[in-house]
Amino acid sequence: MIYFDSDYLEGCHPKIIEEITKSNMNQYHGYGDDYYTNEAKLLIKNKIKNEKSDIHFLVGGTQTNFIVIKSALKAYEAVVSADSGHIATHETGAVESTGHKVITVNNNDGKIDIDECEKVFKDHFDDDKKEHTPKPKMIYISHPTESGSLYTKKELEKLRQIADKYDAYLFLDGARLGYGLASDENDINLCDLATLTDVFYIGGTKCGAMMGEAVVIQNDNLKYEFRYHIKQNGALLAKGRFLGVQFYTLFNGDLYTRICENAIDLSKKIRSAFEQKGFKTLNSPTNQQFIFLDEKTIEKLSDEFSFETWQKMEDKTLVRFCTSWATKEENVNRLIERIKQL
Amino acid sequence: MIYFDSDYLEGCHPKIIEEITKSNMNQYHGYGDDYYTNEAKLLIKNKIKNEKSDIHFLVGGTQTNFIVIKSALKAYEAVVSADSGHIATHETGAVESTGHKVITVNNNDGKIDIDECEKVFKDHFDDDKKEHTPKPKMIYISHPTESGSLYTKKELEKLRQIADKYDAYLFLDGARLGYGLASDENDINLCDLATLTDVFYIGGTKCGAMMGEAVVIQNDNLKYEFRYHIKQNGALLAKGRFLGVQFYTLFNGDLYTRICENAIDLSKKIRSAFEQKGFKTLNSPTNQQFIFLDEKTIEKLSDEFSFETWQKMEDKTLVRFCTSWATKEENVNRLIERIKQL
Amino acid sequence: MIYFDSDYLEGCHPKIIEEITKSNMNQYHGYGDDYYTNEAKLLIKNKIKNEKSDIHFLVGGTQTNFIVIKSALKAYEAVVSADSGHIATHETGAVESTGHKVITVNNNDGKIDIDECEKVFKDHFDDDKKEHTPKPKMIYISHPTESGSLYTKKELEKLRQIADKYDAYLFLDGARLGYGLASDENDINLCDLATLTDVFYIGGTKCGAMMGEAVVIQNDNLKYEFRYHIKQNGALLAKGRFLGVQFYTLFNGDLYTRICENAIDLSKKIRSAFEQKGFKTLNSPTNQQFIFLDEKTIEKLSDEFSFETWQKMEDKTLVRFCTSWATKEENVNRLIERIKQL
Amino acid sequence: MIYFDSDYLEGCHPKIIEEITKSNMNQYHGYGDDYYTNEAKLLIKNKIKNEKSDIHFLVGGTQTNFIVIKSALKAYEAVVSADSGHIATHETGAVESTGHKVITVNNNDGKIDIDECEKVFKDHFDDDKKEHTPKPKMIYISHPTESGSLYTKKELEKLRQIADKYDAYLFLDGARLGYGLASDENDINLCDLATLTDVFYIGGTKCGAMMGEAVVIQNDNLKYEFRYHIKQNGALLAKGRFLGVQFYTLFNGDLYTRICENAIDLSKKIRSAFEQKGFKTLNSPTNQQFIFLDEKTIEKLSDEFSFETWQKMEDKTLVRFCTSWATKEENVNRLIERIKQL
Repeated sequence: MIYFDSDYLEGCHPKIIEEITKSNMNQYHGYGDDYYTNEAKLLIKNKIKNEKSDIHFLVGGTQTNFIVIKSALKAYEAVVSADSGHIATHETGAVESTGHKVITVNNNDGKIDIDECEKVFKDHFDDDKKEHTPKPKMIYISHPTESGSLYTKKELEKLRQIADKYDAYLFLDGARLGYGLASDENDINLCDLATLTDVFYIGGTKCGAMMGEAVVIQNDNLKYEFRYHIKQNGALLAKGRFLGVQFYTLFNGDLYTRICENAIDLSKKIRSAFEQKGFKTLNSPTNQQFIFLDEKTIEKLSDEFSFETWQKMEDKTLVRFCTSWATKEENVNRLIERIKQL
Repeated sequence: MIYFDSDYLEGCHPKIIEEITKSNMNQYHGYGDDYYTNEAKLLIKNKIKNEKSDIHFLVGGTQTNFIVIKSALKAYEAVVSADSGHIATHETGAVESTGHKVITVNNNDGKIDIDECEKVFKDHFDDDKKEHTPKPKMIYISHPTESGSLYTKKELEKLRQIADKYDAYLFLDGARLGYGLASDENDINLCDLATLTDVFYIGGTKCGAMMGEAVVIQNDNLKYEFRYHIKQNGALLAKGRFLGVQFYTLFNGDLYTRICENAIDLSKKIRSAFEQKGFKTLNSPTNQQFIFLDEKTIEKLSDEFSFETWQKMEDKTLVRFCTSWATKEENVNRLIERIKQL
Repeated sequence: MIYFDSDYLEGCHPKIIEEITKSNMNQYHGYGDDYYTNEAKLLIKNKIKNEKSDIHFLVGGTQTNFIVIKSALKAYEAVVSADSGHIATHETGAVESTGHKVITVNNNDGKIDIDECEKVFKDHFDDDKKEHTPKPKMIYISHPTESGSLYTKKELEKLRQIADKYDAYLFLDGARLGYGLASDENDINLCDLATLTDVFYIGGTKCGAMMGEAVVIQNDNLKYEFRYHIKQNGALLAKGRFLGVQFYTLFNGDLYTRICENAIDLSKKIRSAFEQKGFKTLNSPTNQQFIFLDEKTIEKLSDEFSFETWQKMEDKTLVRFCTSWATKEENVNRLIERIKQL
Repeated sequence: MIYFDSDYLEGCHPKIIEEITKSNMNQYHGYGDDYYTNEAKLLIKNKIKNEKSDIHFLVGGTQTNFIVIKSALKAYEAVVSADSGHIATHETGAVESTGHKVITVNNNDGKIDIDECEKVFKDHFDDDKKEHTPKPKMIYISHPTESGSLYTKKELEKLRQIADKYDAYLFLDGARLGYGLASDENDINLCDLATLTDVFYIGGTKCGAMMGEAVVIQNDNLKYEFRYHIKQNGALLAKGRFLGVQFYTLFNGDLYTRICENAIDLSKKIRSAFEQKGFKTLNSPTNQQFIFLDEKTIEKLSDEFSFETWQKMEDKTLVRFCTSWATKEENVNRLIERIKQL
């Protein structure tokens, strides 16, 4: 069986194992005060061209989301998200479990509706009894989004303006950032993120690492004593070196973006094969392709391939084919062959 | 510089890297539904001789402590711990951050004072206005304790009786369990733990793994929908295989205990060398040795060795020398040589 | 200025002051163990014809909502509410502050869309990765709703069926229950509530009391050690007698319902006056009337009357006129006179 | 039976009922924006001679404690209290339920040990790995303390210095403040409190009101958007007028202190009677007297009087006789008569 279910099916990039093996018996201090962690921070600061950002390595996406949000908000403050945002859908209410409401607005192809987002802030501050409602204080977006779409730089700038106008934070979840950076439709780079957001993170888990997300904080309020939050929420690894070594490897040179290009190239080939055969697709610019298939086609392909059901509709089903840094070209070719035979 | 500061200075056991390398490009399902995770669970069930225990692999110790405690307790329930317990001292109030009081009682050489522990329960249930105080519902102990001491089986049985009497849970933190199992003074095995506790965990981070703690749950109440808690608290790794493969390696055979014996042997040698030279020690049965040194001796040894200051007293300082599965005999021999020259 | 802004403009029913005055210097035990509290519980048990319900007197509506919800749910469980529900709109995220997501579905004239409500449960339990989403465990409704509408007994029975099917709780917020019971369109009585809900409360604050809400619990799970929750969340008054005496007075005889009829009668008169003059209304069955007015009319009436802007639309504004147990007929007559002159 | 069990046995001062009766049918805005609330704030500002303090009326002591503490602290910050402090003993872990550790130090006759308190701060900031422990950020004291003792102005100044030195808040719980102000051993007045604390509160419940505590905030950080906290935690009464009218009455003139003097006078008489008969007492300066009695004496007195067992010792029992603003002289005289007959 060949799997296209997700971008976390394989292990990690072999260069990471190499580096781990090489340094394994070196003695390093714990809790992120080690050679690799410190070097990885410098490499990333260099890439974002911002010496002043604070960088922390956390373990996973849900963990990073709730720690960033919890650390930023006062008890009565809320975060605004697209209703399709990961924090609003697939994190078991982790943000609410830290005490904060996630205010949702509609999404356009996975992206937050910017006008509705602004309205949330405007309505709150126009309200005479504003203390009866949670105060919106942060905008959460994912780039790429949960459905693989990309914000434009102009959209990001608009969100920045809203955040500035209402004294709110802009937080960008980059769990799949590598696939965004590698897409030819993307016009946002790491420096833009370090300029336009208060805080964002560079996803490792889905982009070549075993696990790990690099939080990059620009806003001084959010930097303040952030390590207490990491420790209190169980994200401070005793052997922090294992997060450091992974980001060191991925950002020593351009490995992070380069390996993600593989996913984009193969993703386009899959979409193209379906389209040539007449299937409707959502034309996604990153490593996830969404195809409308009938039950018969799904059944046929399922003897050899595994892929995810995204949404059942009346007569069609939207399925997802996901590629990654690790997807083998031969597997994609085999899939294309089978599509042609449909 | 040779470091004896902690038992998480080196990476992980080389066999783990081997197994990771071997399986790296295999495609596995995410979130702990993979070959290695499933095999590792079977291996541990076999070791504890209990088919019915539920096993989950989490990332770190603080995380495991607060998730287990939070999942077990109702909002007004509290956990009883020695005042030297890790949850009471070095977790940045993680348990309190989930809403629960840690009721502390005195420790005897790191172990909870059993009579005082029982008194906490008795006093609460004797109180006419008991709803004005948090209800004690769980006993938390570490084995080995934070200072390296060990509970006897008899003590564990007494704590079990208290838990039974007051309808409370007994939770054992085994962050350094391997060093306990490997100690010649230990009379508690994995089967005892699975019989006497409601839930315990087998520490990986400090006993040969990169990271990871294996939670073993006996009590059905605590098993109920535990995965929701793991996910909500950011402990469910997308690539759960990396936790699975580590425990698979450590428990495939007796690797886990065997590599910890190295730490015990070398620890004893260090203590013995200090004692032969007339220094007072705390005579700890596991991989941590506590020695009373004067400032001059500390200064002398510090040119070549690093070790932790545990407690400053008026004329002496209590320092800790920590060994691990990875400590090299040659380094210990060099230390002993220097001790002899003092 | 004559105010129709809300139903909490005046103090409390004079009979309550009488009873307080009469018993003021009596010595009673604290924390709800007093003559009046105990008698009030018996009176309510009698009214609901259910000896086995547990009754507790809390101070306010937001407090009651979050304590009931927090006490009922495990950390990863959520409550389902209409998007217009009070917990979803005007409680500053109180429920989320206790760690729980409020899952919202559309409302029909303030009432939860029953099909959508059921879909939330169905979708969750159909999901393969259900632990990635909060588990719906409670349905929250208000009767009357926030916009003054009423559930029918049949609707309540349907919601009960959904709750039973999915092992969930049905919780009814009766902050304005008196106005519901007094409405001629209402077909639900106190006995129905005690049969069909797991927990509900009888609002005092808006129905004649100074403050106070009487929580009535049927489900044994929810009864369990509820007083710990009351105390922990700051709702256990030292002088609990002052809540007891108010419910004693309101339920000694039929004072509670009787005084609310005044609000219904006068409310109908106001609506009727507007309708006769050609204004569109929402035709609400309880003590809140929603009228579509133009700016000019609003301005004219505002010289003598105060009322709330509910929603601004393009060419009209929806305003609310609220009556209560305390509304004076002469004030309503004066308003009607002015409406006629428009 | 004559009760000396507590200072919340009777209702409220008759003048409060008078004022409530007088204004009962007046229409006032809700949520604390009414004539009485606003007037009461001015009266208190006048008494503390500080225009800039923010004043809020909350319902009860536990509620006030956890809202003030929760609103002041970041997630990883803790409050330092005497181990006998109300938040550490009789609030069902309310502070922990909001996520914060209560760090306890020894008490001297109910008062926090000042040196130990300072050591908590010093140790934290001296620690190399301070993010592994909760950060102390607030000192909590009660005046009078839970055992009726009083801080001197000098002690309060010392605590202020510690707070300043470590950038922490000083919070004074004045649940029984009236009895402190009325004591002849007290050298702290309301102006001192407004100068020396960041926030304190004036207890109503135990000093003549039905319920209610007046929070007085000096520190601008703590003032910020405090009403959101009040609302979110269920402490914002719709009919806030009922808290306002009580403090208006108590602080219109010197009623608050004057009625508390009654308690002090009668309390001294009780202690004196016991002492003259040779019983050992704790010589408390406020409205609680602690007497060492043997079982036989307790039994004798219990036929006519009720009082609280404070602590059982081997051969004696420490009991508490509590007076209040409402205690009748004739009841005290009857008690004294019986003491003389012992």
